[in-house]
Amino acid sequence: MINLRFRANEQNEIIIPKTMKAAYLQKPLEVSVENIEVPSVKGKEVLVKMMAIGICGSDVHYYAHGRIGNRLVQYPHIQGHECAGIVVAAGDEVTRFKIGDRVAIEPGVACLSCDYCKEGRYNLCPDVQFLSTPPVKGAFVQYLKHHENFLFEIPDSLSYEIATLAEPLSVGIHAVRRGNLKPGATVLITGMGPVGLMTVIAAKAFGATEIIVSDMEPLRLVAAKRLGATRAINFTEVDTNDVVNNVTSGQGVDMIIETSGNAKALQSAINMVRRGGTIVAIGFPAMEEVPLNVTKMLQNEIDLFTVYRYTNTYPLAIKILESMGNEIGHVITDRYSLEDINEAMKQAHTNRSGSLKVMVYPN
Amino acid sequence: MINLRFRANEQNEIIIPKTMKAAYLQKPLEVSVENIEVPSVKGKEVLVKMMAIGICGSDVHYYAHGRIGNRLVQYPHIQGHECAGIVVAAGDEVTRFKIGDRVAIEPGVACLSCDYCKEGRYNLCPDVQFLSTPPVKGAFVQYLKHHENFLFEIPDSLSYEIATLAEPLSVGIHAVRRGNLKPGATVLITGMGPVGLMTVIAAKAFGATEIIVSDMEPLRLVAAKRLGATRAINFTEVDTNDVVNNVTSGQGVDMIIETSGNAKALQSAINMVRRGGTIVAIGFPAMEEVPLNVTKMLQNEIDLFTVYRYTNTYPLAIKILESMGNEIGHVITDRYSLEDINEAMKQAHTNRSGSLKVMVYPN
Amino acid sequence: MINLRFRANEQNEIIIPKTMKAAYLQKPLEVSVENIEVPSVKGKEVLVKMMAIGICGSDVHYYAHGRIGNRLVQYPHIQGHECAGIVVAAGDEVTRFKIGDRVAIEPGVACLSCDYCKEGRYNLCPDVQFLSTPPVKGAFVQYLKHHENFLFEIPDSLSYEIATLAEPLSVGIHAVRRGNLKPGATVLITGMGPVGLMTVIAAKAFGATEIIVSDMEPLRLVAAKRLGATRAINFTEVDTNDVVNNVTSGQGVDMIIETSGNAKALQSAINMVRRGGTIVAIGFPAMEEVPLNVTKMLQNEIDLFTVYRYTNTYPLAIKILESMGNEIGHVITDRYSLEDINEAMKQAHTNRSGSLKVMVYPN
Amino acid sequence: MINLRFRANEQNEIIIPKTMKAAYLQKPLEVSVENIEVPSVKGKEVLVKMMAIGICGSDVHYYAHGRIGNRLVQYPHIQGHECAGIVVAAGDEVTRFKIGDRVAIEPGVACLSCDYCKEGRYNLCPDVQFLSTPPVKGAFVQYLKHHENFLFEIPDSLSYEIATLAEPLSVGIHAVRRGNLKPGATVLITGMGPVGLMTVIAAKAFGATEIIVSDMEPLRLVAAKRLGATRAINFTEVDTNDVVNNVTSGQGVDMIIETSGNAKALQSAINMVRRGGTIVAIGFPAMEEVPLNVTKMLQNEIDLFTVYRYTNTYPLAIKILESMGNEIGHVITDRYSLEDINEAMKQAHTNRSGSLKVMVYPN
Repeated sequence: MINLRFRANEQNEIIIPKTMKAAYLQKPLEVSVENIEVPSVKGKEVLVKMMAIGICGSDVHYYAHGRIGNRLVQYPHIQGHECAGIVVAAGDEVTRFKIGDRVAIEPGVACLSCDYCKEGRYNLCPDVQFLSTPPVKGAFVQYLKHHENFLFEIPDSLSYEIATLAEPLSVGIHAVRRGNLKPGATVLITGMGPVGLMTVIAAKAFGATEIIVSDMEPLRLVAAKRLGATRAINFTEVDTNDVVNNVTSGQGVDMIIETSGNAKALQSAINMVRRGGTIVAIGFPAMEEVPLNVTKMLQNEIDLFTVYRYTNTYPLAIKILESMGNEIGHVITDRYSLEDINEAMKQAHTNRSGSLKVMVYPN
Repeated sequence: MINLRFRANEQNEIIIPKTMKAAYLQKPLEVSVENIEVPSVKGKEVLVKMMAIGICGSDVHYYAHGRIGNRLVQYPHIQGHECAGIVVAAGDEVTRFKIGDRVAIEPGVACLSCDYCKEGRYNLCPDVQFLSTPPVKGAFVQYLKHHENFLFEIPDSLSYEIATLAEPLSVGIHAVRRGNLKPGATVLITGMGPVGLMTVIAAKAFGATEIIVSDMEPLRLVAAKRLGATRAINFTEVDTNDVVNNVTSGQGVDMIIETSGNAKALQSAINMVRRGGTIVAIGFPAMEEVPLNVTKMLQNEIDLFTVYRYTNTYPLAIKILESMGNEIGHVITDRYSLEDINEAMKQAHTNRSGSLKVMVYPN
Repeated sequence: MINLRFRANEQNEIIIPKTMKAAYLQKPLEVSVENIEVPSVKGKEVLVKMMAIGICGSDVHYYAHGRIGNRLVQYPHIQGHECAGIVVAAGDEVTRFKIGDRVAIEPGVACLSCDYCKEGRYNLCPDVQFLSTPPVKGAFVQYLKHHENFLFEIPDSLSYEIATLAEPLSVGIHAVRRGNLKPGATVLITGMGPVGLMTVIAAKAFGATEIIVSDMEPLRLVAAKRLGATRAINFTEVDTNDVVNNVTSGQGVDMIIETSGNAKALQSAINMVRRGGTIVAIGFPAMEEVPLNVTKMLQNEIDLFTVYRYTNTYPLAIKILESMGNEIGHVITDRYSLEDINEAMKQAHTNRSGSLKVMVYPN
Repeated sequence: MINLRFRANEQNEIIIPKTMKAAYLQKPLEVSVENIEVPSVKGKEVLVKMMAIGICGSDVHYYAHGRIGNRLVQYPHIQGHECAGIVVAAGDEVTRFKIGDRVAIEPGVACLSCDYCKEGRYNLCPDVQFLSTPPVKGAFVQYLKHHENFLFEIPDSLSYEIATLAEPLSVGIHAVRRGNLKPGATVLITGMGPVGLMTVIAAKAFGATEIIVSDMEPLRLVAAKRLGATRAINFTEVDTNDVVNNVTSGQGVDMIIETSGNAKALQSAINMVRRGGTIVAIGFPAMEEVPLNVTKMLQNEIDLFTVYRYTNTYPLAIKILESMGNEIGHVITDRYSLEDINEAMKQAHTNRSGSLKVMVYPN
């Protein structure tokens, strides 16, 4: 299984066990840790020893409800897709990685040969295999087999846990790219869950000079300010519209990025974006149809862009995370071993006020 | 008043009368033709003898209802903004036109010095003066004063009446530009009123190879095919979705341009555009809020662009119209003198099945 | 070798011989036809029975000089990369083609997994295997093994020989895309060899309304006009600059596409493109360094784009060729069997005045 | 002359003298300060009391040589175009400014109504009046009359002298916009005169993560590092190519911006930019024709963009300067009164090793 060309030297010899722990979602709200075989790799597959896995809001949703929209969990299921680790084995066609490489894992393995992929929009590949999206199993294991095309080496200065943030940060990067955020822009980002927080980072990296954020959780708002938000609005106390008007002299912001999935946030975005401005939707609304004031959009030539995952973002995400040094660690608020996955999921599910990113360490 | 530098020679001497006819909307459904003074021009103003004026759907709406949304007619009002004519006088700072020039008139006079204008999006200028949009008076007069910045010389081969189509064609051009229509694209255009028909022309000029159109009026569908539509759907007889599926092997079209204002057309566009595709909205919906399936838009990364008037379209519109020769005249179905403006408006208002573009000739 | 899933039915049973003819360039100006084994296919490889192969200017250059720049032929070599044929066998992982499919062959097989490929610029893939570019063997064979990712089904209405033009047309499409040619543009295309002619088609498909072309061969200029050029200049008789000035009222054209490789053509482009205009270079200059008036480029903010092969062009090229029907066949002026490859190459090499595209039919 | 609507209140009453000092270039290397009338303003003109004026490299060139290319000084001439001041009077049509406003002055007054202006590229306006470009007089005066369309209010936190840097920073912004610099990019900027230094700021604001700079003056290189350059190369000591290769693992940088006008810098850029990368030229070469390796540009699909002044940059430039606080003041190394203009010019002309930006204070 181990490609000889990439065998580690004696001092660093890597011993891969035959079995490993994996966290199985057995039914809603119940995860069990079981022993399964460590997968073998061939061709362009790489075996990664998992060092850190973040819990995503979608993980929590599947965990609690067994579905997102019409996509159903097929039990037993393995969750997790924000992950990083160390290469411990490689198939015989692997050329880009060697044993010992530290890597961030991009969870979606696209075919790279359909029209979408060839044109650079591989997030739309109809054949993508995305870690943890049913029926594809996810990353809550000790060893993960992944295609080398979707692994990215990380610099020594970047910890595994911070490297897992490349995944939600990719969503933020894709959002500001799709909306064509320009340096100097004024931006409102609604919803300061982890994706919202990462979008603050992305907006700042793309040169936004005014980044207003809104949420109802003080912890999140504080985190957003530490990451670069210029104004943080607790919308239970302050009217977002008023703040936007004050900051922009009544013009509205250049761009609004909606990450919460709150239909009202999307609706009111139309009133807070400037004439000729742009709305970018990330958050899936709870209701399928959202009544939108299309008339006002037309009168002000407002566009609505949508974001589905991301494409070609990992190299930039890693660069940005590296450049942030210690400014980002505070986003990780809870840490668990893989054995304690139930508590980790529960924490992520229930402690909205006290937790930001919950991290799991399988090894 | 007449700039001496531009005086026509003796043979072509132009005699401008002191008074002229103008069509005043006195209340809904009632227009009276009155004699008023011919305006004088100064600075960069040009006096145009009006040769043809098309009636737009918005003219009909104001005529019938006295308002569009929250914009109210201030009676008495002059309508009309799709127009062309001949230059008969020019202010002393006019440099681009001389007496005798045949011109298409772009109805919106933007300030050209605000940020929107400087950046090339003068359709969003907050200070634009747009012919016939209340309280600005419109073009149903014999002589119109207009700023030289928004006049465009037309070639001899282009008739005045065809030149008036540069206005609705501009909307179509702006739509395909905003949506970034690419050569080879498959497009569905819903609504084949005059704007829809002009959008067919624009889509073809931008290289769309499949142009599907839908409407319920056979006359319009026939006209659309003559202008370049590859398939014309009478949605009272055939399911548009089925046709789109057949043509695109179930993938959906690259772009949908909605011109009808029918909320259902906009809603169903989300089901008929391909993954990663684009919807462009032109038509103002009757209902203010349109429930849209944002979830599906997110899952397929579908974007919604909106169109408000147009910017920098006239030179291209004139080129396209010129290139069409006799292929476009059939769009003009009814012709009236300015004295018969009431009948012209009535025809445009009521004869949806038999009329396409109704044209008025003031001189 | 033949994938059973794709076996043709009895009536159409395909019998693949064990050996085939292949044309080997043995040294400059000498090609010999030899018998070699028909290749077997596996995985995602497809075996294509070759029905038509066009001779490209680069084929002629390698044929005559044994090199292009610092790229040397490794003898014996097989040339040819503009080709189309019929699928006769498929590896067991092939999913997009079945036996009997008629296909155009995109000659460059990119890795599709490096950064360039992932971002949609697979023409820049450092690992591309391009038919006939040394040391990769080319298409002058009776049966060619090719990766399914770079095959494109052609409609019944498109002949094999016309389908081979998808290759040079792709260069033209890539050029107008890179230069961002917009509908209504005025374009000058210098050099009316086959690539120049195909660029005329591309410019027209992208909506250019004025397409001026220049060459010194009357045959080529006539062909250009038949394909859509609005003005054809024989630069041995007429000054191109004068024509451009006349057509554009001294402003210069919006875009110049240089396909000839003539250094003077590139140099003078700077004088004939309008302020803010664009030059696109396709043709490789004979001299390595071309003295360019950068000062004038700066004063007029003129940009120079370059074209290296193409990316994501075949589907559009096939659509365009299909739409042209009989309007394009005249470009093929000479037809040879594979046995007569020497004469075919000689004709392409020497008959600049009488030949446009020379075509070879191996089966 | 003073618009009553904008009269300052009694406490701040502004007394405008009848005469003022102006610096006249009488012949190469000789400037005399003379008394002339303070201009009066009307219409949309604003009278600005000049508080700081930077000396640009082009000022120095005209001062020393009496010409740039084929553009000749018409003596006596007034130079200077990087300037800021305070509004002291306004014509009766001025709407955006009032007396007492602190403003940065954009020196080029474009017509805003030609096609270039309407499309947002007003830097290409053929009728632009640009301060100090012969025959238009410049800013080395105590009071300057300027059109309100090209004045920009500056925040209290921004000093006049820093505000003058909006002009060279605009060139840098325009360069990174034209080349479409993307966050995460690796950039090489050659030439660290004031424009080069401002381009470092622009590249950083647009998200470049690696900014390599080169020059031969240690003072400039130190300044570049303070402004955000990640590596500073003294090319008299270190080979730029080697550094680029080391930093980019032999790939070359994404973008090279050439500001020095050194032909060799432009030539070698082709060897140091990555495959598919972009070169942006700002500096005017001393020689009119620069021999460029077009073959290599073609093989690597390298594009060359040029920069002529800037368009729509001032609002962003002011935002960036404001955000920099005290980090930028070190760029101003020499300060003179208007009376000492001769020494100021001499310093700018001769002290390449010891001076960066030389500033003049007329009031």
